[in-house]
Amino acid sequence: MNSSFQRIGLISKYGATTVGATLRRLIEYLQARGREIILDSSAAEHVPDTRLSCVERQALAARCDLVIVVGGDGTILNAGRSLADAGVPLVGVNLGRLGFLADVSPDLMTDQLDQILTGEYAQEERALLHATVQRDGETLSTSDALNDVVIHKWDVARMIELEVRIDERLLNTQRSDGLIVATPTGSTAYALSGGGPILHPSLDAMVLVPICPHSLNNRPIVINETSTVEITVHAGDYTQAQLSCDGQVNVALLPGDRVSIRKKTHALKLIHPPGYDYYEILRRKFGWGKTS
Amino acid sequence: MNSSFQRIGLISKYGATTVGATLRRLIEYLQARGREIILDSSAAEHVPDTRLSCVERQALAARCDLVIVVGGDGTILNAGRSLADAGVPLVGVNLGRLGFLADVSPDLMTDQLDQILTGEYAQEERALLHATVQRDGETLSTSDALNDVVIHKWDVARMIELEVRIDERLLNTQRSDGLIVATPTGSTAYALSGGGPILHPSLDAMVLVPICPHSLNNRPIVINETSTVEITVHAGDYTQAQLSCDGQVNVALLPGDRVSIRKKTHALKLIHPPGYDYYEILRRKFGWGKTS
Amino acid sequence: MNSSFQRIGLISKYGATTVGATLRRLIEYLQARGREIILDSSAAEHVPDTRLSCVERQALAARCDLVIVVGGDGTILNAGRSLADAGVPLVGVNLGRLGFLADVSPDLMTDQLDQILTGEYAQEERALLHATVQRDGETLSTSDALNDVVIHKWDVARMIELEVRIDERLLNTQRSDGLIVATPTGSTAYALSGGGPILHPSLDAMVLVPICPHSLNNRPIVINETSTVEITVHAGDYTQAQLSCDGQVNVALLPGDRVSIRKKTHALKLIHPPGYDYYEILRRKFGWGKTS
Amino acid sequence: MNSSFQRIGLISKYGATTVGATLRRLIEYLQARGREIILDSSAAEHVPDTRLSCVERQALAARCDLVIVVGGDGTILNAGRSLADAGVPLVGVNLGRLGFLADVSPDLMTDQLDQILTGEYAQEERALLHATVQRDGETLSTSDALNDVVIHKWDVARMIELEVRIDERLLNTQRSDGLIVATPTGSTAYALSGGGPILHPSLDAMVLVPICPHSLNNRPIVINETSTVEITVHAGDYTQAQLSCDGQVNVALLPGDRVSIRKKTHALKLIHPPGYDYYEILRRKFGWGKTS
Repeated sequence: MNSSFQRIGLISKYGATTVGATLRRLIEYLQARGREIILDSSAAEHVPDTRLSCVERQALAARCDLVIVVGGDGTILNAGRSLADAGVPLVGVNLGRLGFLADVSPDLMTDQLDQILTGEYAQEERALLHATVQRDGETLSTSDALNDVVIHKWDVARMIELEVRIDERLLNTQRSDGLIVATPTGSTAYALSGGGPILHPSLDAMVLVPICPHSLNNRPIVINETSTVEITVHAGDYTQAQLSCDGQVNVALLPGDRVSIRKKTHALKLIHPPGYDYYEILRRKFGWGKTS
Repeated sequence: MNSSFQRIGLISKYGATTVGATLRRLIEYLQARGREIILDSSAAEHVPDTRLSCVERQALAARCDLVIVVGGDGTILNAGRSLADAGVPLVGVNLGRLGFLADVSPDLMTDQLDQILTGEYAQEERALLHATVQRDGETLSTSDALNDVVIHKWDVARMIELEVRIDERLLNTQRSDGLIVATPTGSTAYALSGGGPILHPSLDAMVLVPICPHSLNNRPIVINETSTVEITVHAGDYTQAQLSCDGQVNVALLPGDRVSIRKKTHALKLIHPPGYDYYEILRRKFGWGKTS
Repeated sequence: MNSSFQRIGLISKYGATTVGATLRRLIEYLQARGREIILDSSAAEHVPDTRLSCVERQALAARCDLVIVVGGDGTILNAGRSLADAGVPLVGVNLGRLGFLADVSPDLMTDQLDQILTGEYAQEERALLHATVQRDGETLSTSDALNDVVIHKWDVARMIELEVRIDERLLNTQRSDGLIVATPTGSTAYALSGGGPILHPSLDAMVLVPICPHSLNNRPIVINETSTVEITVHAGDYTQAQLSCDGQVNVALLPGDRVSIRKKTHALKLIHPPGYDYYEILRRKFGWGKTS
Repeated sequence: MNSSFQRIGLISKYGATTVGATLRRLIEYLQARGREIILDSSAAEHVPDTRLSCVERQALAARCDLVIVVGGDGTILNAGRSLADAGVPLVGVNLGRLGFLADVSPDLMTDQLDQILTGEYAQEERALLHATVQRDGETLSTSDALNDVVIHKWDVARMIELEVRIDERLLNTQRSDGLIVATPTGSTAYALSGGGPILHPSLDAMVLVPICPHSLNNRPIVINETSTVEITVHAGDYTQAQLSCDGQVNVALLPGDRVSIRKKTHALKLIHPPGYDYYEILRRKFGWGKTS
């Protein structure tokens, strides 16, 4: 058996009652194969009686050879942002509903992990975005996103006006409900609801999708992942905007704030069982039948 | 000259510095034609030295034969909601930029008003929507809209889940950023940005447009204006939703709140100069050239 | 039992092998209830050994009180165009796959027809379109459509240029792959693929949907069913266009040809089993789940 | 002065009456700068009295250091397909209307060519697609496209059914009016009308855009330019499909025909005046104003 995945970290969805059983099966399975197991607090809360070591997520990432995340795509988004820097690969076990990221099903879990632990797997790199908010020349906040960085109007039923620059060149000044900047991973999430295209995960690209743009010919644009996107919130009487990363981190933006978005240096290493087929996941998630 | 428009009310955009000059020209013009003029406070603030009577908007609507609104479409939306019940017709003078509703231009104002005052004009009825919010069986608020009633997620980067019923029959339960219910008048405003169709003003219809729907086959649907739309906000951990009418009136909604939307009994009487051509306004607003 | 549906016509899909069994069950059922049955040739071909009278479709429409169509929506579209003028109501039995129009399922057929024959049913009127092609001032052809009239480029990979007038007023001159003019019935067919909205069947409206328009702000527009749409094919070196009605009738168009489309005087009377719910059909056809 | 562009080929739009004057100015300008000029027949027809040598387009590409194309984007598409293999760079002079590819305006032509001839210019590579049609195991035809390869239904108002594979993996089987496979260059042409995103020219990608797909959740997908797309036309009673490259080359397809599309080995070298700004062209072509 492959010795590279000896120390395995477990992370899971918070608060989901169905997680416990899967997690216990997983622990039993890994112990039977002689793996060292480390939990973070999200996993530990589901197995309160365990004697396994429980550490902070950063420490877990630093000490493990592989992290198994039990939950949905949201759980993986959350874990992925924490783990990318450490370079530890991640595999996702879903809770019965196929995810784009969590593609090991509980039913096939032991067979598929057998393969992964013996070195039979597909590994791919998923880019993250890094967003920096500048106010009055100072950095107000930084945050990462595996799916998308979204600048969205807030609280009022008015459009916001955003000036968008790519690599220091003006793209346009647009009035809309907001703007989504998504990775290929995020292209099948919120960006798709906003009318964006699907980007194959192997593409070195990001996509800008305007949300309900005032101008009907303001369209999604796919740009190189090496580009830097700068978005400035224009002044307005009642403008209120916020920044979200993967729908979870929020910063309130003021007129004049400048959000700079670029690809994060480290990508997330995502592991799939052998035979991983992105198109099959698309077909199943979107119900593309024989004649879709 | 036609005697039907003897007492004329003037309403204008608040705070716009360009309004004053147009308003003074208009007052001079109407006085020269022996019309009685009544202002509301929005108009009076631009001509502080006038001796014209200034009354509340409801009183103005009750006492006048015609109301001239100086401003953009937003000003007319605002005035229209106040005036519809009184049944007084309204004509809109724009401030240099053609509006869908404010279609008298300052340049042609005196000529076009000459025609209107002598009875040469086109009158149409524009339907309004009436929204009622019910909480725990009690009416929380009511409001009117000439463009649209919008239920929108609020403050957080999550979708809301709405159950939509039409005439007491389930349409669907949808997850989205929100739902727009628009009149034909509103179909060229926010609903269009959300992907809705243009509805000709003469249509007895309203359109439901989902905002960034999670399901890709959730599409705009046009229904009869006699229908009642009921939207229930579903419970969720972090759901926060708000109700807006014409982007101006806001009510915070809680899970379980039920918004009932139906056509208002009284329509707005909107007056246009003779030769009014809705399609020409579409062409100019959307830049449909010879070969659009 | 209601005596109004005594003479019943049967029409079916041509060539479908699964039709025969359903048709035989239907004949047996109707004979057991003492109904007189008349076939057209489409039905007769499936029951060659029958002694039932078989007549032309127009004669069938004239002599029957009710026509039952066995097949899919395509079969009903075809029959509906023939039957609308005669005013005979039509009910559709599908072949196992729910249709928008053919909503009686073979499994529930006898129960649902029991109800219909005793007068328990919902009847609605579905508007048809009537298209006239004028060339050099003469009428070249006329045709009817229950779904849509489509003007489409033909044979070459170039856009066509169409001048569109509504009630003699210019809407626009557009370059596109073509233009769909659809009834509410047709709004869930080709027009939907082209990006059009769903129109509730009770709407007195038609919708114009441009196909792949060159101009990004050329959008679907819903107009009153009382309007007349006139489309002129513009001259071009290689322009080739064709006219289709419900995807079945074709006329080759030349530059300068003018297609006039208006609502047909007679609507189709469509009968549904009691409890007919249009929204339920939408949900089932589009897979709108609990949380679509 | 830079000696690299000594022998310059001229290609122009066929039949356009406005080309002649620009071409003469161009010849005069180049002769004054001591350049050797070679024409192809498209240019020669506009200057019938010239003593310049006129050769076949392939020979011109082989012998020249630079080719100047006078015309619109269509002329450049045509020339680009011929010139890519030879590796000769191309610059486009438009006829007064800015093109995505023809971005030297007649007014600024001499100044901008001064810069280009002295080595001040921006050069980029634009990928082409290479399409192969296989029938019964044999190659029926091959063709190149700078914008797009389109498989489109032909002559009848029915959808076609296409099976799409990417790198030998099934993407889906789709019913639609057709499918566009576009380069970044083609993303602002027909693919955009079909609802596709804009792809920045520097992206190593192609985009698949379904035309009026039957399934509402069949969406544009952007894939890696190293991928091979295989499209098989499914059998159907009346299926008729055709293949177009850049809207100009046509092959009639039969059920069972397999179209294989991959990136062409040689890209087109496209030269722009210094200061070339793709986003500015987007803004001008799409009318993105200050507040689009």
